[in-house]
Amino acid sequence: VCFSKALLNVGEVEKPAEPPQTSFDRETKVIDFHYPNELLQMNNWELQDEPATLDDILISCRATLKYAIKTAHPRYFNQLSTGLDMVGLAADWLTSTANTNMFTYEVAPVFVLLEYVTLKKMREIIGWSDGRGDGIFSPGGAISNMYAMLLARFKMFPEVKEKGMSSVPRLVAFTSEHSHFSIKKGAAALGIGTESVICIKADESGKLIPADLERRILEGFVPFFVSATAGTTVYGAFDPLIAISDICRKYNIWMHVDGAWGGSLLMSRRHRWKLDGVERANSVTWNPHKMMSVPLQCSALLVREEGLMQNCNQMHACYLFQQDKHYDLSYDTGDKALQCGRHVDIFKLWLMWRAKGTIGFEAQIDKCLELSEYLYNKIKDREGYEMVAPVIKARMMEYGTTMVSYQPQGDKVNFFRMVISNPAATFEDIDFLIEEIERLGQDL
Amino acid sequence: VCFSKALLNVGEVEKPAEPPQTSFDRETKVIDFHYPNELLQMNNWELQDEPATLDDILISCRATLKYAIKTAHPRYFNQLSTGLDMVGLAADWLTSTANTNMFTYEVAPVFVLLEYVTLKKMREIIGWSDGRGDGIFSPGGAISNMYAMLLARFKMFPEVKEKGMSSVPRLVAFTSEHSHFSIKKGAAALGIGTESVICIKADESGKLIPADLERRILEGFVPFFVSATAGTTVYGAFDPLIAISDICRKYNIWMHVDGAWGGSLLMSRRHRWKLDGVERANSVTWNPHKMMSVPLQCSALLVREEGLMQNCNQMHACYLFQQDKHYDLSYDTGDKALQCGRHVDIFKLWLMWRAKGTIGFEAQIDKCLELSEYLYNKIKDREGYEMVAPVIKARMMEYGTTMVSYQPQGDKVNFFRMVISNPAATFEDIDFLIEEIERLGQDL
Repeated sequence: VCFSKALLNVGEVEKPAEPPQTSFDRETKVIDFHYPNELLQMNNWELQDEPATLDDILISCRATLKYAIKTAHPRYFNQLSTGLDMVGLAADWLTSTANTNMFTYEVAPVFVLLEYVTLKKMREIIGWSDGRGDGIFSPGGAISNMYAMLLARFKMFPEVKEKGMSSVPRLVAFTSEHSHFSIKKGAAALGIGTESVICIKADESGKLIPADLERRILEGFVPFFVSATAGTTVYGAFDPLIAISDICRKYNIWMHVDGAWGGSLLMSRRHRWKLDGVERANSVTWNPHKMMSVPLQCSALLVREEGLMQNCNQMHACYLFQQDKHYDLSYDTGDKALQCGRHVDIFKLWLMWRAKGTIGFEAQIDKCLELSEYLYNKIKDREGYEMVAPVIKARMMEYGTTMVSYQPQGDKVNFFRMVISNPAATFEDIDFLIEEIERLGQDL
Repeated sequence: VCFSKALLNVGEVEKPAEPPQTSFDRETKVIDFHYPNELLQMNNWELQDEPATLDDILISCRATLKYAIKTAHPRYFNQLSTGLDMVGLAADWLTSTANTNMFTYEVAPVFVLLEYVTLKKMREIIGWSDGRGDGIFSPGGAISNMYAMLLARFKMFPEVKEKGMSSVPRLVAFTSEHSHFSIKKGAAALGIGTESVICIKADESGKLIPADLERRILEGFVPFFVSATAGTTVYGAFDPLIAISDICRKYNIWMHVDGAWGGSLLMSRRHRWKLDGVERANSVTWNPHKMMSVPLQCSALLVREEGLMQNCNQMHACYLFQQDKHYDLSYDTGDKALQCGRHVDIFKLWLMWRAKGTIGFEAQIDKCLELSEYLYNKIKDREGYEMVAPVIKARMMEYGTTMVSYQPQGDKVNFFRMVISNPAATFEDIDFLIEEIERLGQDL
């Protein structure tokens, strides 16, 4: 790995350096699109009995990169996880080289300590006193949210671990109609059932309506879990956390904040007010692989109560978590996890944080929000193309010049869902996007 | 990334090249052990507001590598996932650089196709006709096993997805007393409860006793899931799959094979008989990040019935899985998953497979089993040190010369649990281990 000051971009906060790589080059395509059947035939992807030659291996690598989506391209606005941070990349390469597993201190001493240090820092930023509490890095926001639901159920009915759901009354969970689908997915998996996830109405701006939450809580069954969303998937709305926490306290319900997308705003002094009340939550999902541009996967679940995760998930496997080891066993974090082997996701976040400092992440997040405001101001008076979004999208992928997602929401027809998360994007890229959408749709 | 023929080891099957890197150098320590509190003080690991200097970043990287465990060291026998394959490493680096997400073909066209090709190949090797069926790469064996249990429950009671466990009778699952703890962990999470996982007796060699399985099935409740183990965690035993499948068919129970560890033997013509009957299973967990030495994480769940995963897990999130897209939607695999964002785990396996060919993996696995037989023959007449395993283990970590795990099992006291999975290990390393254990324990 060749480190250079320019590549690492250490100490530069305002203007991320853009090395002359094709990923960041606006002249290259975001995507060299081919239909699945075409792509299957454009290279030999089959697995064979005999080893391939070195040339074949290199051809395969080149083809893989050629047809990959350039998620770091400044005009890639398609998903919440974008960008390519050079320190994050170097850290991910080091992680691969170390090739170890998070289950015990014994096999991952440094990474286990860095997870400890980083989770504590994140809890301090949430506002839990002295950073106390617990947490884990999981394979993504959906799993982090599932952990939260699992903990909430265990907190209220610890016997469910041994006796299952047949030992408890019917539980109900609450979340906004704009919340992420992983809440329902988690409820289906955990044996709670999707019908027991009550969708609470959101207002015009996409925020959960607290009065509707309270009304639905009073309808019956056993309310055990409210998932408020900080940064909804489509509108980017922030539910009113203080009002929600008042209701959760009143009815003694676990309050979870799904900040997979918006949790990163906690790093910004200018914008963190949108999460006011987060410190009252029992658990928080926060994905550094989204707005903080840490390479995928990097998702944290933070929990206010210490010891609960361990009690909820431990199975005491004696081949891993021997109780007669010669070091402090509190660092053997594996039995808190749903997983056995667990990938090292911490080092890239930790190293980026060191390289940028908290103020570097803050600047990056402030920049994304500034671009978003710029976009809003530019298009607020230009409406009318939402009806044809899928057609423009198809053309956009064929041209490969930019990439943005689309979808309907409720009674609204298809519209573009613009995500600004990529640190490489500039005001000019936003201008380009608007022009390109109009250009591609001009004959429609 | 510098590719060289020696590093890539392309086309060499019998003798893996050993580049002169410290990871593979027997003269270096496997571990430079320090207690957690010591290690916390040996470097400044704190996260700060201000950016660090480039020097600080490089110092952190060096410290991280210095205190990391050398899992690729030929004398690291501590865990099931070991080794450092150079093609796998290069592929992981390419994956990091591409930094994308498996949920749709749109954002990961090549990786989605490679997952399709590889899962099909694995199903062919299992013996399902024409490689038909389904599957997914998950973040590890525990999650793969949880998927299997989820599918079994959904297959028998599809209403559980919407209505939860309160809509179904009490379900019971069966697995050997030597099986992996993830079966119970999964049952706890899914709302089934650990008490509904019935542990079936194993014989002296660690294999599940089919007669005991049938006896327990007849005890009542609703049997829905049997998890047979192919390669138990401690003894490496293979449950008798044909006898188990006869029972599962008789009582109409989903048969899962947890081949997280032993599934790789399917690649070996000499050893695959140990899994005879696997083709009758409904689902199979198979972790290439164990005996095949693919860098962590790389775990597959293979499922015989097509379409079931989709029906079980889909939530139709319309911002990702738009139904009006312009390409074949069967390649948008994300809605089959429990996760939303999903890390790209496929490329390292696929590229290693291309580089070695099936026969390369076969040779690697045959070598591990040969070393294991050699070890067995060398120590079968030398007994007597199991009582002091933890003390020797502590000394071993301090000296850092080799690393092997230990544990009790049932009424047996602590013994060393020797794992041979590292392609870099040789007969001499096995000799060294035996001598070292005796040397470290000679004054006890």
